[in-house]
Formats: sequence, structure tokens, C-alpha cells
Amino acid sequence: MADYYVLFLKNVLVVSLAMNMGLIWRMRYEDEENLTPSWGNMLHLHGSGLYAQKNSRIQEEEEEEEEAHASKKTHILTTTLSSAAPDGLESVVINLDHGDPTMYEEFWKQKGEETTVVTSSWQHISYFSDVNNVCWFLEPGLVSAITALHRTVGNAVTEGRHIVVGTGSSQLYQAALYALSPVDGPGPMNVVSAAPFYSSYPLMTDYLKSELHKWAGDAYKFNKEEPYIELVTSPNNPDGFTRQDVVKGDKGILIHDLAYYWPQYTPILSPADYDIMLFTVSKSTGHAGSRIGWAVVKDREIAKKMTTFIEINTIGVSKESQIRAAKILQAVSDGCIHHNRKEAETNFFDYSYKLMAERWKRIREAVNKTTLFSLPSFPQETCSFSGRTFGQLPAFAWLKCEGEIDDCESFLRRHKVITRSGKHFGASMKYVRVSMLSRESEFKLLTERLPAIKT
Amino acid sequence: MADYYVLFLKNVLVVSLAMNMGLIWRMRYEDEENLTPSWGNMLHLHGSGLYAQKNSRIQEEEEEEEEAHASKKTHILTTTLSSAAPDGLESVVINLDHGDPTMYEEFWKQKGEETTVVTSSWQHISYFSDVNNVCWFLEPGLVSAITALHRTVGNAVTEGRHIVVGTGSSQLYQAALYALSPVDGPGPMNVVSAAPFYSSYPLMTDYLKSELHKWAGDAYKFNKEEPYIELVTSPNNPDGFTRQDVVKGDKGILIHDLAYYWPQYTPILSPADYDIMLFTVSKSTGHAGSRIGWAVVKDREIAKKMTTFIEINTIGVSKESQIRAAKILQAVSDGCIHHNRKEAETNFFDYSYKLMAERWKRIREAVNKTTLFSLPSFPQETCSFSGRTFGQLPAFAWLKCEGEIDDCESFLRRHKVITRSGKHFGASMKYVRVSMLSRESEFKLLTERLPAIKT
Repeated sequence: MADYYVLFLKNVLVVSLAMNMGLIWRMRYEDEENLTPSWGNMLHLHGSGLYAQKNSRIQEEEEEEEEAHASKKTHILTTTLSSAAPDGLESVVINLDHGDPTMYEEFWKQKGEETTVVTSSWQHISYFSDVNNVCWFLEPGLVSAITALHRTVGNAVTEGRHIVVGTGSSQLYQAALYALSPVDGPGPMNVVSAAPFYSSYPLMTDYLKSELHKWAGDAYKFNKEEPYIELVTSPNNPDGFTRQDVVKGDKGILIHDLAYYWPQYTPILSPADYDIMLFTVSKSTGHAGSRIGWAVVKDREIAKKMTTFIEINTIGVSKESQIRAAKILQAVSDGCIHHNRKEAETNFFDYSYKLMAERWKRIREAVNKTTLFSLPSFPQETCSFSGRTFGQLPAFAWLKCEGEIDDCESFLRRHKVITRSGKHFGASMKYVRVSMLSRESEFKLLTERLPAIKT
Repeated sequence: MADYYVLFLKNVLVVSLAMNMGLIWRMRYEDEENLTPSWGNMLHLHGSGLYAQKNSRIQEEEEEEEEAHASKKTHILTTTLSSAAPDGLESVVINLDHGDPTMYEEFWKQKGEETTVVTSSWQHISYFSDVNNVCWFLEPGLVSAITALHRTVGNAVTEGRHIVVGTGSSQLYQAALYALSPVDGPGPMNVVSAAPFYSSYPLMTDYLKSELHKWAGDAYKFNKEEPYIELVTSPNNPDGFTRQDVVKGDKGILIHDLAYYWPQYTPILSPADYDIMLFTVSKSTGHAGSRIGWAVVKDREIAKKMTTFIEINTIGVSKESQIRAAKILQAVSDGCIHHNRKEAETNFFDYSYKLMAERWKRIREAVNKTTLFSLPSFPQETCSFSGRTFGQLPAFAWLKCEGEIDDCESFLRRHKVITRSGKHFGASMKYVRVSMLSRESEFKLLTERLPAIKT
């Protein structure tokens, strides 16, 4: 078993490093100055300038590859890993820009049939899931699993609320903007969030140059006598702090993004009970590839309008992903309830809390070995779900470069650590957001590299 | 086996009718006058006025149901079926408004393990599928299956093209508009399509009041000296005809929606070779619930921009759906190639062609028994895939009410057949679009009811 684990870790390391090498290849396509917080650009720009001298053979191989749509990528990736990292792990680029939750793979690998989904080809043919529900494309099994999980964890009120499923919570954010912005308003609805705010909010609000809504920036600076939507992200992305609304005007409508309000990241204090609350499996159980988010909505008309947005945008949400998310969320819920009678590993939130606590201990130890960086501190509170008393354990480290380093992202990039600059979050470039959810191999490299960095 | 088949058909009938009953319940929520071609509204308005006297017990049950998010719907549906249809099938409402491709369930039910997908909970955790591809969230297995199928059928050129996957082809349509509309243009880009055009195009173009693009109506009437995007849907939705672009201006860009360019609907004449071609599993194999579409794109920069749209909109596309679509498309492709060595039922396009041909024969016979309706005629051509010579067998019947019936949708609704009015397609209200892809039970009722209708 131990041998298997070591072998597995080695494989994870190779695949993970190979993926990072893949990222580096993109550098020739992108101009480093065209820095926008979009996923594609983030992917493409990483490592710019680091490997400008990479040999043309690899470049040609990649181009042939894409043209042919062939499936020989693993071979090329592996080849490249060895050629790109001749001097060992020191030359490896660690990409912690995205919050890709691959950390959770290990937990799910110990799970067997109870979370395995088998789908026959005649299933899920229809567009419709439940024509009696406001959200007609929502699978009834997913509703049950979502409400059971919220009841078990105690992090949100769902009784008497409407559930709307989305292709990730990004789609639900856009659906909520659509639902809350009047069609015949005097001008686009103002959308604000307190800085530092999630870097995708401005982009998702403005990318279509909609006349319905416009990004109006930092909520702390908003002082117009106009209607507005305020996004309250709690715990906050990027910095992990618990948040309340800040504008507190009489013309405001709130959207609560509670993607991280789960007991591995924060003490659960009480069931959230807001008008519109957004959640996602990407951050709760780690199944980012499924693209499943859900909104808990008080008002029936708003739930209907959000549903209409998703109808027009994508005519519903993948049934396969919904069915799988239902099974996994139900297993998490059941695992919590039967926790006392089984081994600790059956409780997902127990496992993931311990892992996050351990990672935060390690990154704080790493940062404490140097004067170049600092991390935020969080007050301790008691979690109503676990009974534990602890401070936030955010999915991202909001790392500050101390002293004379003004551009922390560029500084870290020179040391082959890819992060996202504070400027994308409406904050200072002295800050970067660093994912804490990577695979162990990458996280380990991070904690080794940070204390070794010299100016 | 025969007994099983009869039992199965009975079950299909009950479920199918029960679903229709479900649709009827919505009537009290919607104003019949607020008729827009959105999915939700379409769902909600169906049957308006037909069952205005339905008893309040059912209504209360439904409301309790929704509040409780419980899973007792089947019971209530069955109860309602019997109470709502006391006089047998004549009072049953047939909903053929959507192109819900449930017709294909029968084919897939005979398929076994070769099209069954088994997914463990540790799989597809990551956002990323292939960081070396322009479309980084596209599963390599889906690329292989798509290109193999186009090669087998001979309906599209994929060599040297980029594939972009979308959450259905609706998302890809919006991605293409985003990619083709300049950010800093003098005004919104004009978007046109020859009437009758797909009813969702105007809505998908304008629902966010984007300054990037605007719906400019019937391509036949477009005479501005401005840049434009022309949508060419071939075979056309709603009327099934083969289409070419009609504006032919020097400032035009074309998007080809080829959702129905498959050999069960139309003779395949040659591999399509356009700049941007959209396809979807919803109409090719019938897996509408999976929400998987794909674009075949010549220009790398356009493929990148389309990918960026999907990044911002939904951060990629369900991995579960992609994996399943890959397996099903590959099975269809393999089934065509090995057709001669196996029984006819292994060839999906052979099966579905025969079914469509039979349905069109039956609906034409039904319509020929009355002078109230007419259907379009199509020229015969030889299919390069099957070698058969036949006229179009569209997924929708573009039915015309003859004589003095000016509002064909309302007329048919009074006879408990729900269709979509020509007005949503930029055409006369003397026309309606009728789905040909329903389950057999509903199609049979349609062909029985049409000849029996009197003015």
C-alpha cells in the first residue's frame, strides 16, 4: 500500500509537471502586456519569457499535434518534461494561478462504487428534467442531495427556497445579473463588490457590453444615488475573509457568492439566509470539471428569470453532470451523518478540513522563514458543524510581497511560481493570489521554494 | 419479447402523457398574450385555457410539492393523468412545440455496454482537459470521435480545422457572435438570417442588449451598407429546406448552423467546408440532455475567441457530457463502418433514416386526408453516405393552415396540439412548426388527430 502510494505520487508529479510544461509552451502566442484575468489568457501567458529559447523541435511537434487532432499528447508532454527540466525540480514552473481543486482527487480515489455513476446511452435524452419545477431542467435527485447537504452542514437555509442549477456558478452569477437588471431601466444597472473582489466579476459583467448592467468597481467607493447590485463573497475570493455588504444603500440588491462557505475553509457560524446565494461543486467537493453550481433563491420570479437566462444561454445544464453531482453530494452528506460509526475517511469535510489545516500550517511556516512575504491572519471562531475552533483556511493564499517589491506577480514568476496579481482583484500589485488547492507535488514545491527566494 | 415491448410502449405512453399533463398545469402562471419563443415561456403557456377548470386539489398538491422539493412527482403525475383525461386519449394535449428528440430512445435502448459510461468520483476533477489545445477544456476523446464521425458520414471537412466544444450549439452560436463582432465597432454588428429562421436566433442575439451585436432580421430584407453576420441554417429550422447565404454582400461573415446536416434528415451531398460550422448531439444522436455541441472552425483566432467566450460564460463544458458524447459518437461511427457485418440495427443512421422516412410517410398521409393543412415538398437527391435517393425528411414539419385559418397555432391548440407559430420564425401565422422527433405515442396521436380536425 505504501509502495503504491509512492508510485502514485510519482505519477502525479510527472503528470502535474508535464501539464505545467504544457502551459509554458503557450508563451509565443501571447503578449505579456495583454494581461487580462481571463482563463485562456492566464493559461497562455504563463511562463512568458522563461523559456524563450526553447528548441524549435518541440514547437513544431506541438503544431503538428494540433493540426492532426491526434491523441499522442502524453508522449510529447513527457518528452518535453525531460527536455525542459534538465536540472531537476528547480527549473519546474509551478502554476498556482487557478483554483483548480485537484487536491481533492486523493479523497475520491479511496471511494468505491457508492460514488460511481453508470449511465446507459438511452438515458437523459430529453431536454427536460422536471416540468413541474420553476427550473425545468433541474434533476430532482440533485435537489434532494443539495438540500440534504445544506441541512447536514447547516450552512444555508433551503426550506421554502427555489433551487436553480447552472453550468458552474459563473453562469448563475450572470443569470442573477440578468434577473435583477430591469430591461427598461434608465441606464445599465451598477454592479459592485468590495475590493479585493473576485477577478472574474468585472469580466463576466462587461464582456458582452450589455446595456442591462455594468461593472461599477469597488463597493467601498460607490457613492451614486442609483440602483446597484452588490456582490458579497464570503469567505472572500481572493483573501478569505468573512464578508458583509458594505454599500448599505436603499437602492441595493445583494447577491451572496458562498462558494467557499464550507467547513474545510471556514467555521460555519449559522445557516446563511439571503435572497440569492450561489454555491458550486468546484469548491465544495472539488468536482470543477462537472461545471455544476446552484443558486438558492427566495423569490419565485427571480428564480424564473434566472432559469430563463439559462434557457437562452445553454438550454439547460448537462444531465450527466447533475446526476453525478447528486450522487457525490449525497455521499458527502451521508458520510457526515454516519461519521461516528465509520472511519474518519468517510467524512469528506473532516478529511478536507485536516488537509487545509495542514497546508496552511506548512505555508505559514514557509513564509515565516523569510521576510519577503506575509499572509493575512484570521480570528478564531467555533464551527457549528464540526465543533472545532479555528481561523479561516482559505482556498487561496493572499500573499503580500514586503519591502521594495512592487509587482509581486512578476517577482514570483521570475522564480517560476505563477500566481494572479492583486491588480486583477482591484487591489495593489504587492499582492498575489496563490491557489492552495493544487496537487501535493506542486504545493510541496511551493513551500520549498518560497523560503529559498532571494531578491 | 413481444409482451415486453407492448408493456414498454404502455409505460412510455403513460409517462409521456403524464409529462404533457404536467405542462398543462402551468397555464395559471402565464398570460397567453406574453408569447415569446423562450423555452420556459413555451413550457409554461402550453395548454392555456384548455384546462382552466381543473380542480384545486391538484393545484394545491403541486404547490406543496414545489415548496417541499420532494420526489413524489410520479405519483401526482399519474393521479393527474387519470383525472385530467377522463374521456380517454381525445382530451390529451400533444406537445410538439420543442424538438425534444425522445424518438431516439428506442434505438439506444437496444444498445448495451458498448455505449454505457462508468465514471468514478475521482475522475474529471480538474477544469482542464488539454492545455495544448486552443480549446483547453475539450476532451481529446471527443475530438477523435467527432472527426471520425464526420469522416465516416462525409458531411463536414475537419482536417486542419479547430474544434470548439460548447454547452449545446446555442452557446457556440453566442460564442461565434462574440468572436465575430468587433469590440470597438461603430455600432453593434448586424445579425441576419433568411426567414423563416430559427426562433431562438433573435432572442440569443438580443437578450443581454449587447452593444456588440443586434438582431437585424430577415436576410432577404437586409440592404444596409454595413458589416453583418449571416446565419445559414441548412437544412433549415423550421422548414427543412437546404440553404445558401442570401445577402452575398462584401461585408458579410457567415455562420453555418448544420445541426440537421445528418443522413436521417437530408441527403448528404458533399462534405461541408465553411469557415464556422455548428453541430450538436441533440439532433445528430438525440442526446439533448447532454448539452454538447461543437463548432468546426477554420481560423485559429476565431476559435480562440470562441473559447474565450465559453471560458467567461461557463468556464468550460461538462466533462461528463463530453466523455459520454465521445463514446456515443464513436459507437455511431463504428456502427456505420461495420454495418455490413452486423444486423441493420447497429447502424444508427440506417435506423433513424427509416424511422424518419416512415414518419414523413404517415404525416403526409394524415395531411392528405384533409384540405385544412399542407406540407412542403422537397426535391429528391442522392445521399453520398447511404446511396439512397430521397427528399428531405426534416426534424420539424412546417405545417400550413389552408383557407381562412389565419392563426394556425391557436387553431391547433384548440384541438389540443401544441406547436410553435410561424410568427416566431419571422413568417406568417398561417404556419406552425411541429416536432417530428417525439415518442411514438405522441406522434401516433398527431397523425390520428390531424385528419379528424374540423373547422
